[in-house]
Amino acid sequence: MVYVSRKEHFNAAHKLYNPAWTDEKNKEVFGPCANTNWHGHNFELITTVKGIPDAETGFVVDLKALSHIIKEKIVDRLDHKNLNLDVDFLEGKMASCEILVIEIWKILAPEIKAITPQGELYSLKLYETPRNFVEYFGEA
Amino acid sequence: MVYVSRKEHFNAAHKLYNPAWTDEKNKEVFGPCANTNWHGHNFELITTVKGIPDAETGFVVDLKALSHIIKEKIVDRLDHKNLNLDVDFLEGKMASCEILVIEIWKILAPEIKAITPQGELYSLKLYETPRNFVEYFGEA
Amino acid sequence: MVYVSRKEHFNAAHKLYNPAWTDEKNKEVFGPCANTNWHGHNFELITTVKGIPDAETGFVVDLKALSHIIKEKIVDRLDHKNLNLDVDFLEGKMASCEILVIEIWKILAPEIKAITPQGELYSLKLYETPRNFVEYFGEA
Amino acid sequence: MVYVSRKEHFNAAHKLYNPAWTDEKNKEVFGPCANTNWHGHNFELITTVKGIPDAETGFVVDLKALSHIIKEKIVDRLDHKNLNLDVDFLEGKMASCEILVIEIWKILAPEIKAITPQGELYSLKLYETPRNFVEYFGEA
Amino acid sequence: MVYVSRKEHFNAAHKLYNPAWTDEKNKEVFGPCANTNWHGHNFELITTVKGIPDAETGFVVDLKALSHIIKEKIVDRLDHKNLNLDVDFLEGKMASCEILVIEIWKILAPEIKAITPQGELYSLKLYETPRNFVEYFGEA
Amino acid sequence: MVYVSRKEHFNAAHKLYNPAWTDEKNKEVFGPCANTNWHGHNFELITTVKGIPDAETGFVVDLKALSHIIKEKIVDRLDHKNLNLDVDFLEGKMASCEILVIEIWKILAPEIKAITPQGELYSLKLYETPRNFVEYFGEA
Repeated sequence: MVYVSRKEHFNAAHKLYNPAWTDEKNKEVFGPCANTNWHGHNFELITTVKGIPDAETGFVVDLKALSHIIKEKIVDRLDHKNLNLDVDFLEGKMASCEILVIEIWKILAPEIKAITPQGELYSLKLYETPRNFVEYFGEA
Repeated sequence: MVYVSRKEHFNAAHKLYNPAWTDEKNKEVFGPCANTNWHGHNFELITTVKGIPDAETGFVVDLKALSHIIKEKIVDRLDHKNLNLDVDFLEGKMASCEILVIEIWKILAPEIKAITPQGELYSLKLYETPRNFVEYFGEA
Repeated sequence: MVYVSRKEHFNAAHKLYNPAWTDEKNKEVFGPCANTNWHGHNFELITTVKGIPDAETGFVVDLKALSHIIKEKIVDRLDHKNLNLDVDFLEGKMASCEILVIEIWKILAPEIKAITPQGELYSLKLYETPRNFVEYFGEA
Repeated sequence: MVYVSRKEHFNAAHKLYNPAWTDEKNKEVFGPCANTNWHGHNFELITTVKGIPDAETGFVVDLKALSHIIKEKIVDRLDHKNLNLDVDFLEGKMASCEILVIEIWKILAPEIKAITPQGELYSLKLYETPRNFVEYFGEA
Repeated sequence: MVYVSRKEHFNAAHKLYNPAWTDEKNKEVFGPCANTNWHGHNFELITTVKGIPDAETGFVVDLKALSHIIKEKIVDRLDHKNLNLDVDFLEGKMASCEILVIEIWKILAPEIKAITPQGELYSLKLYETPRNFVEYFGEA
Repeated sequence: MVYVSRKEHFNAAHKLYNPAWTDEKNKEVFGPCANTNWHGHNFELITTVKGIPDAETGFVVDLKALSHIIKEKIVDRLDHKNLNLDVDFLEGKMASCEILVIEIWKILAPEIKAITPQGELYSLKLYETPRNFVEYFGEA
């Protein structure tokens, strides 16, 4: 069982904002992250697939195919976008890293299953900045 | 003559957009960087001061004082902000890194002169991403 | 269940030295790390909290609050200090990274519990250099 | 129980190539990674040992001894080498990262056991590039 | 005058080898870098263009166009290649970083002039490893 | 003319302290950097040599020879040392980065001249932390 990882990046705007709250409460809870006119980040996403290396290729998963799927299904929908306004799969959800990583998992897990018979998605690690990041293992 | 540098960071939203152009022309020239609803970056700013080290302190410039001025005059006005909408010193200007670094120079150069009798601002290096960055030496 | 991490840093001096041993034995076992007059590092500390994201904020833990507690309880007591001489919670202990990370856990675990009802400290990762680091999960 | 890590590096050439296949099939499956005349990488290897810190030294494992063994048993056999042609322990095997990390484990696990009575090899993380990497925990 | 930089990467094999010398002399002068069966690196190339920002775009050079040219003219000819065997513009030349960076300059300088009326190639910085790198400013 | 660089590192303790001043004045001017019992850093030193590549080797300077001299003349005298107490060439001098980089230049410049007929020391860049660093070009 080997764990294979691929790192991709996207640049996006967002704000932390609960629409059920007043602006004042949003500023109080989220501070500068609630700035009305948005702010943004260079996000880095590390996708880790675990599985048994294939005897003929030595691969758990073809990294070119994995990279292609992450770009098509995730990066193209997030890069140079506003996470609160432009992303269908985040509609009606908080644009925090915790929520984002869970929603990315829902999309990527079946896609990865489809390209690697012997592997499966193991974890997603999402860096908002080099000092703030989240990781998700699909646990309820 | 020694060159002393301090790196600070800020997270901001922006878009590349020339208001004299149609939306179509903006998309054509700037591509995804013109996304209507903004995108964003983790910016890194390296400020370099050159001068003769002071005989008593061994300092060209007190890095605590330099860091304080960069934060007060630049980072506090850019961090968690929208470069096109929230920053007074960028009003009416393109929010490209090239223009931003020139405007930061105009603010920082006299401030740095004021805190270091034997030094002066030498260069500003601004990273938009680890792969895209600009540098300015105050040259016309 | 999402794992949220915050990285903080501190610069400190230390030496590896067992007071029960002669200087010769210390030099023999610890080599240059036992240098009488100390040496030092830029330490990086990654604190990871695991928990269920809160429905209203999207947060497992407020990273501003987490950062504040790490700074107040750990960084302010270690930064620009001598780990062998200046740190009350290391008194009578080896100033190795292994011991340091266990002692930091004892302090941070209850503090983090207090600021996040739905989360708890999951791991501490301490870099002494980019090539030498330790991780602790609170296991006995 | 503390996890102690040491990062080492080596520069090597390789290609992905299954000798049971035609050149055409190799190019089709492995793409540019099958380039006849090889390509190469700066590999980074992180070795993690878990164990109880020793009461007298504060060490799970002496990092100087660990580094020495990794260099002698692994780095000296891979650095400035061709993974397909020059490495005895890869003979007849695919030179993919997945296979390489498993073969390194077989060599390092008993060596590490021999230098640390209270510790054992926990994981190996091998970076082929900063964006592609694998991890192995000795799982069948 | 602003200096704008773009970082690209490629993975290649090479060896240091002077065909006018015996194998023994090559090993003596170049050490492990002369390994008969090659070794390799993850190379990083930083291309810096200097010029006056355009009034309408705020650009010295369109980074998408710059990146496209570097990829088409340089990266596609070096990535996943053997610098000694596969690269036409290095034929009959030493595959050292010093020579490589000069040959890249000859190709890129006119290409960059063609895409930016107000700018020109200022420098090329080529990392062989994070610890070994060269820079070239077109000086004879 | 090509500029060739080599990065080396050392871990050292120091404090900023002017012995002509009272402890109070030292704390006032240098803040936590004056901590009586020292603090420390992972220093990184980048040595840049400029020159014409040799026709037979393709080298401005043999990086193995350059690395050997930096280690023998500088790193071995600074690594795991106290810059204020253990380093003969800093005796009676402020242990600031500005002063340290000038003193390193005095030692390295003639040593580098001796190993490369066609090159000479061009600059020294010394990182105290990833955010604080100095550069020196031998200018009076």
